[in-house]
Amino acid sequence: MRSVLLSQGAIQRLEVARPMTSGKEALVRVAMAGICNTDLELVKGYMGFEGILGHEFVGVVAEAPEPRMIGLRVCGEINFGCGQCHYCAQGLQRHCPTRRVLGILNQNGAFADYVAIPETNLRVVPDSVSDRQAVFVEPLAAAFEILAQVHIGPNDRVVVVGDGKLGLLICQVLKLTGCDLCLLGKHPRKLGMAETWGVRSRTQDSMSEEKFDLVVEASGSASGFQTAMALLRPRGKLVLKSTYSGNLEFDAAPIVIHEIEIIGSRCGVFEPAIRALANGWIDTESLIDAVFPFDEALPAFDKAAQPGTLKIVLDLNV
Amino acid sequence: MRSVLLSQGAIQRLEVARPMTSGKEALVRVAMAGICNTDLELVKGYMGFEGILGHEFVGVVAEAPEPRMIGLRVCGEINFGCGQCHYCAQGLQRHCPTRRVLGILNQNGAFADYVAIPETNLRVVPDSVSDRQAVFVEPLAAAFEILAQVHIGPNDRVVVVGDGKLGLLICQVLKLTGCDLCLLGKHPRKLGMAETWGVRSRTQDSMSEEKFDLVVEASGSASGFQTAMALLRPRGKLVLKSTYSGNLEFDAAPIVIHEIEIIGSRCGVFEPAIRALANGWIDTESLIDAVFPFDEALPAFDKAAQPGTLKIVLDLNV
Repeated sequence: MRSVLLSQGAIQRLEVARPMTSGKEALVRVAMAGICNTDLELVKGYMGFEGILGHEFVGVVAEAPEPRMIGLRVCGEINFGCGQCHYCAQGLQRHCPTRRVLGILNQNGAFADYVAIPETNLRVVPDSVSDRQAVFVEPLAAAFEILAQVHIGPNDRVVVVGDGKLGLLICQVLKLTGCDLCLLGKHPRKLGMAETWGVRSRTQDSMSEEKFDLVVEASGSASGFQTAMALLRPRGKLVLKSTYSGNLEFDAAPIVIHEIEIIGSRCGVFEPAIRALANGWIDTESLIDAVFPFDEALPAFDKAAQPGTLKIVLDLNV
Repeated sequence: MRSVLLSQGAIQRLEVARPMTSGKEALVRVAMAGICNTDLELVKGYMGFEGILGHEFVGVVAEAPEPRMIGLRVCGEINFGCGQCHYCAQGLQRHCPTRRVLGILNQNGAFADYVAIPETNLRVVPDSVSDRQAVFVEPLAAAFEILAQVHIGPNDRVVVVGDGKLGLLICQVLKLTGCDLCLLGKHPRKLGMAETWGVRSRTQDSMSEEKFDLVVEASGSASGFQTAMALLRPRGKLVLKSTYSGNLEFDAAPIVIHEIEIIGSRCGVFEPAIRALANGWIDTESLIDAVFPFDEALPAFDKAAQPGTLKIVLDLNV
């Protein structure tokens, strides 16, 4: 089968054998897959991953322990827990200490014709959600994770720092709370998109002295942290959403003096994201910059790595 | 009157005029005052403070707008809010953006025969609480602030990093929750003290691989942050309690990956601290290493700055 493989810091298109499935795993024929910033970070060395990339996908079940699953259109939760530990017992597979993570940690991913995945990780995609929408379920779930962790009410003043793919999804999710929402970004095109969704947009130059109850750092850069801290009111909350390699350096005294709360936020469960897409609440179409046939996956990665690019989708049906 | 004044990075014993009080301020004759690590940090340049030091004190009201206050034994909340803003309206004077802070920010402190303080900041000390205990109200309130911010239940595994004065007060406060509590420190004498209070004690060498639900960083050093992070379970909480000058540098990825919550924690309100002392719940006597007559304040500071020293108290009655 076709695949996009990361090895020794370089990606290549490679023919490999179909994955073998173990007793509790299903085999999914991948239809579409999205390139995420995390994929670009993995190529730079983040997590030290080697193998088939890809964790945002939709496909059709080809083989499964449970026959009624075969033929269903699905996406898949990316954290494979041990099923035995304290975290797995609470439904927190994504924090299982021995987890594998699809295309990120000790587990081949979905940039391939077929992907093996525990059957319990599969989530059926309703007919009302297209493949082009379904590739957003994973990052959208990560955006909903913020609401699972922090209460945001309609009177809260909230700002999202970073107008990338994740920042734009987060804006659409946080808008659902009715909060007073602002996006701080750099790109007129993306800020304009936020405005059409009813989100105030600002550039660094056009920020007033306004302070916020909650700041979401989704810029994917270390400088975003400093920016985010400066926007917080005393006792405000800072949600750290983006992962990147490299160290942060900052003065910790303001965290203590202003009693700031910093909350790391990673993956979320898929159900709220699927429901939101099915409800038509999330504009994913504006976020797609291009769909590449899978055979052009390497140029697709080049395009995804260009600053300012939004979602690049790989189409495995062609 | 006598005073201990910080000017241009040096402290001196100086005769100065009694403070003038404005309409809403009382004048308190200071009886005893404690030297805090923050005082030592201020001498090193923290906050850029210049003036009379001292924010942990007990004394007797000499003058007050409300005559019935005169003669009462009191301590005083150290944050002087504007009384008008959003924060003051919620009783959060300690986060008022234009606040002054006794002996720390734009306000002369209590290392002097008399201190001026807004009458609304005074808290009456019950007869069952001695002067030697009452000098601990301010740092003890800072320890109780943790419980005001974070729920700690009897099933939580909690570790306090740092066996200094603040760490030892925090241990005694957190113990009240019935949690499984551990103190990580360096000094056999202090760790032994914790053991007598029923708190498990560990040195860095004797730590197992155990992970904690909540870690309180009270070591007052940048390295304590790294230590604290390493002790946290996924989704654990880190309370940052100590202020110090200088930057932290660390890898932010684990905060996001493990969805860690970091909570800055500073001053608390005095009432719970006063009640706890009145109830006999807190052993402050073991924490006093020496009481110096006020005329020996400079040697007292030298003593307080020696590593491993616990509370040094200044006695203004002699």
